[in-house]
Amino acid sequence: MPSPTYELYYWPGIQGRGEFVRLVLEDAGADYVDIGRQPGGDKRIMAALKGELAPFVFAPPFLRCGDLILAQTANITRFLGERHDLAPADEAGRLAAATIALTIADLVDEVHDTHHPISVADVYEHQRDAAAQRSRTFRDKRLPRFLGYLERTLAANGDWLAGTAASYVDLAAFQIVEGLRYAFRHAFAKQQCPKLVALRDRVAARPRLAAYLASDRRLPFNEHGIFRRYPELDPE
Amino acid sequence: MPSPTYELYYWPGIQGRGEFVRLVLEDAGADYVDIGRQPGGDKRIMAALKGELAPFVFAPPFLRCGDLILAQTANITRFLGERHDLAPADEAGRLAAATIALTIADLVDEVHDTHHPISVADVYEHQRDAAAQRSRTFRDKRLPRFLGYLERTLAANGDWLAGTAASYVDLAAFQIVEGLRYAFRHAFAKQQCPKLVALRDRVAARPRLAAYLASDRRLPFNEHGIFRRYPELDPE
Repeated sequence: MPSPTYELYYWPGIQGRGEFVRLVLEDAGADYVDIGRQPGGDKRIMAALKGELAPFVFAPPFLRCGDLILAQTANITRFLGERHDLAPADEAGRLAAATIALTIADLVDEVHDTHHPISVADVYEHQRDAAAQRSRTFRDKRLPRFLGYLERTLAANGDWLAGTAASYVDLAAFQIVEGLRYAFRHAFAKQQCPKLVALRDRVAARPRLAAYLASDRRLPFNEHGIFRRYPELDPE
Repeated sequence: MPSPTYELYYWPGIQGRGEFVRLVLEDAGADYVDIGRQPGGDKRIMAALKGELAPFVFAPPFLRCGDLILAQTANITRFLGERHDLAPADEAGRLAAATIALTIADLVDEVHDTHHPISVADVYEHQRDAAAQRSRTFRDKRLPRFLGYLERTLAANGDWLAGTAASYVDLAAFQIVEGLRYAFRHAFAKQQCPKLVALRDRVAARPRLAAYLASDRRLPFNEHGIFRRYPELDPE
């Protein structure tokens, strides 16, 4: 049996940061194996975490493509996007896309820290007071700022965030909208970001992505991932 | 007067994330202007923050090189490193370097959040209790994990973190050690990371960097940047 082109190493059972990678692989129609969801996959991820895949990877997602190994979501999606015609072709566009992808990654980090403001090594229930405070700041200050940034970028660039066609950054923006609608539905409903929502709809309608989203490969959101629904963090 | 090759947009008065970019520019001997430290520089940074430099930049540092504009520290240092022989030449090495640089950027984010765990829009003094909690987790769990990762990578790769020569990632590792020795001197002294400290010394001895570090272009650490010395967050 021939080796798959790509091996994705990510926790099973959650969308998490791995979902940004899955979306690119799926939209590209790439040949990949989601290692964490194979029999014995958890052991392979634990081994990779110890550095056995490569010493320089720290936390999933990891991607292996033959002798190439890389980690960090925005790095992986850039790599895949540039190989699969899901990135601008020119240097200025590629740098813009990389900039936006990393800014979206910062937003994802801030979403994570709404429920884990004190310690990633402890459960939400032990840091609820700080989570309530951090979520308030997120809803009132950070979310409008990030969404305003994406809206401004779309207003300047047109239908897509970078370049003249869909790229890995647009897929990331789709995931942001989906995640925010799950985790912060009330706060998100108050935002003014019609261009971002329209972009989300354009991405969702892409044939390979639509098929993926309707499949059981697309996991539902839950309270183990990045985007979590804790009603007390998102009051009406 | 000819235009400089590079314009760096960053807050004046702090090392902050901009310092990771300055270290690469200085080690490369590149022709650059530190816009924030020029007369009227603050206005140019505020204009850039509003999207007037490019709509897709969100927070400093920003870099302009002719028609190319980019943001995000690890993105900028990768771009400069690959142009100035401060990055591995092969794709596997470049992806490893990019991975490590982004992991160091995550460490920098976590250092920042030790003093701002609740809100980046408010002062440390209003979030001291949460900061004390987050700092404890940082000292006990996260710092050893990140430093162990860098130590493991050096043990596997040799004198440098990626490839066979100094790269932008090694300069970032230097800055991490300097910052931790300032902000978390007691916690850092308890860590076992001899290879990382030796790397810091190799980087500091590079002639252009040594000249930079001895110049007044190298700002001192202070309590406005990322690495801040709050003794209550770093008990003996």
